[in-house]
Amino acid sequence: MSNTFGTRFKLTTYGESHGLAIGGVVDGCPAGLVIDNDLLVDEMSRRHGGPGATTRQEPDNVVILSGIYQGRTLGTPIAFEIRNQEADSSDYDELRDLFRPGHADYTYAMRYSYRDHRGGGRASGRETAARVVGGAIAKMLLREKGINIEAKVLSLGVDAEHDSTGGIIECTITGHPAGIGNPIFGKLNAQLAAAMMSIPSAIGFEMGAGFAAAMMKGSEYRDEWCHTETLIDNPTNNHLTMTNHCGGIQGGISNGMPIVFRTAFHPVVTIDRPTECLDSKGNIRTWNPRGRHDRCHLHRTVVVVEAMAALTIADFVG
Amino acid sequence: MSNTFGTRFKLTTYGESHGLAIGGVVDGCPAGLVIDNDLLVDEMSRRHGGPGATTRQEPDNVVILSGIYQGRTLGTPIAFEIRNQEADSSDYDELRDLFRPGHADYTYAMRYSYRDHRGGGRASGRETAARVVGGAIAKMLLREKGINIEAKVLSLGVDAEHDSTGGIIECTITGHPAGIGNPIFGKLNAQLAAAMMSIPSAIGFEMGAGFAAAMMKGSEYRDEWCHTETLIDNPTNNHLTMTNHCGGIQGGISNGMPIVFRTAFHPVVTIDRPTECLDSKGNIRTWNPRGRHDRCHLHRTVVVVEAMAALTIADFVG
Amino acid sequence: MSNTFGTRFKLTTYGESHGLAIGGVVDGCPAGLVIDNDLLVDEMSRRHGGPGATTRQEPDNVVILSGIYQGRTLGTPIAFEIRNQEADSSDYDELRDLFRPGHADYTYAMRYSYRDHRGGGRASGRETAARVVGGAIAKMLLREKGINIEAKVLSLGVDAEHDSTGGIIECTITGHPAGIGNPIFGKLNAQLAAAMMSIPSAIGFEMGAGFAAAMMKGSEYRDEWCHTETLIDNPTNNHLTMTNHCGGIQGGISNGMPIVFRTAFHPVVTIDRPTECLDSKGNIRTWNPRGRHDRCHLHRTVVVVEAMAALTIADFVG
Amino acid sequence: MSNTFGTRFKLTTYGESHGLAIGGVVDGCPAGLVIDNDLLVDEMSRRHGGPGATTRQEPDNVVILSGIYQGRTLGTPIAFEIRNQEADSSDYDELRDLFRPGHADYTYAMRYSYRDHRGGGRASGRETAARVVGGAIAKMLLREKGINIEAKVLSLGVDAEHDSTGGIIECTITGHPAGIGNPIFGKLNAQLAAAMMSIPSAIGFEMGAGFAAAMMKGSEYRDEWCHTETLIDNPTNNHLTMTNHCGGIQGGISNGMPIVFRTAFHPVVTIDRPTECLDSKGNIRTWNPRGRHDRCHLHRTVVVVEAMAALTIADFVG
Repeated sequence: MSNTFGTRFKLTTYGESHGLAIGGVVDGCPAGLVIDNDLLVDEMSRRHGGPGATTRQEPDNVVILSGIYQGRTLGTPIAFEIRNQEADSSDYDELRDLFRPGHADYTYAMRYSYRDHRGGGRASGRETAARVVGGAIAKMLLREKGINIEAKVLSLGVDAEHDSTGGIIECTITGHPAGIGNPIFGKLNAQLAAAMMSIPSAIGFEMGAGFAAAMMKGSEYRDEWCHTETLIDNPTNNHLTMTNHCGGIQGGISNGMPIVFRTAFHPVVTIDRPTECLDSKGNIRTWNPRGRHDRCHLHRTVVVVEAMAALTIADFVG
Repeated sequence: MSNTFGTRFKLTTYGESHGLAIGGVVDGCPAGLVIDNDLLVDEMSRRHGGPGATTRQEPDNVVILSGIYQGRTLGTPIAFEIRNQEADSSDYDELRDLFRPGHADYTYAMRYSYRDHRGGGRASGRETAARVVGGAIAKMLLREKGINIEAKVLSLGVDAEHDSTGGIIECTITGHPAGIGNPIFGKLNAQLAAAMMSIPSAIGFEMGAGFAAAMMKGSEYRDEWCHTETLIDNPTNNHLTMTNHCGGIQGGISNGMPIVFRTAFHPVVTIDRPTECLDSKGNIRTWNPRGRHDRCHLHRTVVVVEAMAALTIADFVG
Repeated sequence: MSNTFGTRFKLTTYGESHGLAIGGVVDGCPAGLVIDNDLLVDEMSRRHGGPGATTRQEPDNVVILSGIYQGRTLGTPIAFEIRNQEADSSDYDELRDLFRPGHADYTYAMRYSYRDHRGGGRASGRETAARVVGGAIAKMLLREKGINIEAKVLSLGVDAEHDSTGGIIECTITGHPAGIGNPIFGKLNAQLAAAMMSIPSAIGFEMGAGFAAAMMKGSEYRDEWCHTETLIDNPTNNHLTMTNHCGGIQGGISNGMPIVFRTAFHPVVTIDRPTECLDSKGNIRTWNPRGRHDRCHLHRTVVVVEAMAALTIADFVG
Repeated sequence: MSNTFGTRFKLTTYGESHGLAIGGVVDGCPAGLVIDNDLLVDEMSRRHGGPGATTRQEPDNVVILSGIYQGRTLGTPIAFEIRNQEADSSDYDELRDLFRPGHADYTYAMRYSYRDHRGGGRASGRETAARVVGGAIAKMLLREKGINIEAKVLSLGVDAEHDSTGGIIECTITGHPAGIGNPIFGKLNAQLAAAMMSIPSAIGFEMGAGFAAAMMKGSEYRDEWCHTETLIDNPTNNHLTMTNHCGGIQGGISNGMPIVFRTAFHPVVTIDRPTECLDSKGNIRTWNPRGRHDRCHLHRTVVVVEAMAALTIADFVG
């Protein structure tokens, strides 16, 4: 099910970077939900970034084709599309037989034999626009249940001219009840990990205290229950435990504390300098990137992190 | 599908720590595979640890009930069980109404209302024995394809008397071809992340350079293609790239380089000292642990990491 | 998912006719359900038939291994097993290289290459015992919701000495609400059809008026709404429509009327007379059946029909 | 997964009869398949029927949005859409609060509370256009493997003025190998049954000898192996058995003989005469149909039967 996320609140995405359109289908959204177009436009705008954030300037007009009648969901599939308006892909002709380093060109060729080389094809970051649409609908559903999802850039690599940077995004979920999740293989933290690692450039994931917890002693790590007197002094701790090293999930199930996790992203792999590519005959050839490439994608990725988190939670509570 | 892992090579596990048995069903294993009983016994022994590794001394005798005829798999479900031989659970009577800190007692109660409090019930680490059986069968299948999976403890927390430690386990997969995996939501790295985060105590996951990659520049992070002359100098790099910062997966699909990932585990949360528990009426009560508790589970978890990795890869290539 | 039925209330079965055991795992049953052992024993007894109903006389002792604590379900997987007590399978030695006509011997060999030829192996009707266990648990759940499932033999083929017969079983579901089911591919009638056609020997399925509806005019077929005055005259029609030609399902969703469907079963294909078999080299060889073979399985299949119906409904409402 | 068919070769459909578009996404089609546009147009034309076959005259222009590059599939999702060009739905205003007899109006209202009443909404037969697109792609894939699927109207109800008729469609699959299918719950015949019963108006399904087999003796029903001399006399019987009462599937797995099954369809339930509807307050109100309604849909349904059969087989062999 590589193009479908979720089992109850499901998002299927489709589309290549330089095909006719990208888009998706949300299946499993309950009937009667009011669609908030402003939220959808805001989320798309967050992903698109401000002026100069990406060199691709086409507006991402989302057209909803089904599943909504008079502003409310019908419980039937919500299909949407975003047409690709920039048709000129001649920039990419020289890449037809080249595998760029760090990209998925080579692995797609190994996996499928036949591929669309233009702008990364299906592997393009442009696919995340469809995730943001699905995530916005999930957020509308979660908002009705009082659940809030908010991510931010926690740290950024050092910027350098003609180079690129990565960073870490932290996401916090609040307003949800205890008891969300499943044991064993369906753990909420495992589903969040899969959701985050499915985002392009993601290379690490941790809950709560994360990798630092590996070096703690049990007595340092363990989240102790709040006493009544403690609760008075710590009004912001959601009233259950004095610390939140576990990140709000125990045994795969939420305990009601904020769910906190971080995702590490490696730097953009296309850099504005001559690049050695492998060709399909095994030779090395130099290529000068002229396409549209961000130097840092972290700020635009925040809303994608939120979208995937919203889809994950909606799959449990939707 | 919280008790089932995989979609093609599937493992379903069952069982509570102090019920009649734990066990599982492997569905989707091809017919004709020779079952290597020695490997199975060895893997169970690795999980059980050496003398003193766990205070629970019962032998884990695995009985295979179906799916095998004259030493070969039939392509039908392989059911197995491990009877729980120590029946005395009176140690746990005082925990009937208590939620221990750091454990899943509270979240299971919130999720299911009704629970088996004895020894962690379904949330007990004992469930991982069933994963090791499934993983051993997956390893037999992968071995026939030349694929090898090997994990080790990379770092351990500092030991302290009457306390507990966690650590980091690194796993390396070799011998697989390029082209394993799927794009978008079915990425091999996302499935590995979910597999690892489903292991009890897992709190972080990273591929290749991991969180460190977030602070690298693109020119430092990017894995450049090997030149022929480079290949001569670096015979161990599997002939594709000069570094392996991505951990062997690009765009969710293996590139043929070793697949390398690390999982962080928090310390054991039961510590041999008086512990404040929450009871079902919201009061704090002190409990003195007398059960069977390891001070460090990392060495026993290595084979569980390998088992989950084997199940993940078998699901793609099986 | 060939050995698993359902997506929310799931039954996985395992076991070969002459292996160590058959059994299964029910996953997705809610926590807190009281297990009615008497019902379970009764259902097993209905499947086993009265004296002489089957030549296989071993008792089907069901052992539940997990998922139940102090008589109630835990919400965790309910694993169960039935040991195969008759170990002598030498009766079947001569069948090692023979494909009996009408059986799945040949198709299993084509599908798996390697097979267990003893007593039909995995294809044996004995597998349905595991379905009856799963169905009994589903019935306990449905009974709490007031839903009742009852099947009966509607017609039987004419009995003949040294021959075998099939027949038709009708099943009626009552006490359920309107609104159960899904549109398009998840139609309740489609799921019931798949459930019934998965039973050994099933060869036809129809809802309500069934095949006869194909020859009706629309004005004859269409179920008209009851008037108030009609309701007075037809107190047994569940108050919605004057007829029930659709069998209680419209657009894949229940309308609250009784759900009525029929399943046709072909006769038992092993007959007590010399039989021409195909061998693996393509030659015809004569075999004299000496195993355990019913002449008519319809009465024993009634409870299997109910079990599969219960599992289907539980998957929607559980 | 009510809007998705299949687990490996998957079709998801979307769209309401009077929304902006209907369409779908095919996921799991292998890369490199040549798309035959003529076949696609032909199939759509078969569904649309000849002049006068349906009163809805808009052309069904299929636009493929993704998954295809230079005439070949990429292995990525193939999204397609058919815009709904007739926007005037005022014909349906009077149906906003009415439940027509025989339709899914009432059951959708019970299932979803909120619904699109125009032209049947999601329950409209128009949704089958998306199935025909998916089926056409499946047929292209099967054709490469030499597998052929052909259906025909076997019998029709008697036509009558101002009334409607149903009938029976028979479908035959040839050119496939033995060994397709799965045992137990994944039986090929069970999947075909679910596929057929998911088609609007389907009310019965049978394989091979079908319901007639229920009245046969075992000696009449059983398909005996061909002898060499028999093969000479019966060159058309595919060389395995002398009869094909089982319809080409044994134990859920194909035996290589033609796969033969029949589906019964009840008559169209909208008839050109005053009709008593239920309103949402429980009163009976008379409605005069003025919309677009076929008197017999059987000829147009033949290609839908083939499409669902092709999708079913592609899910096993794709």
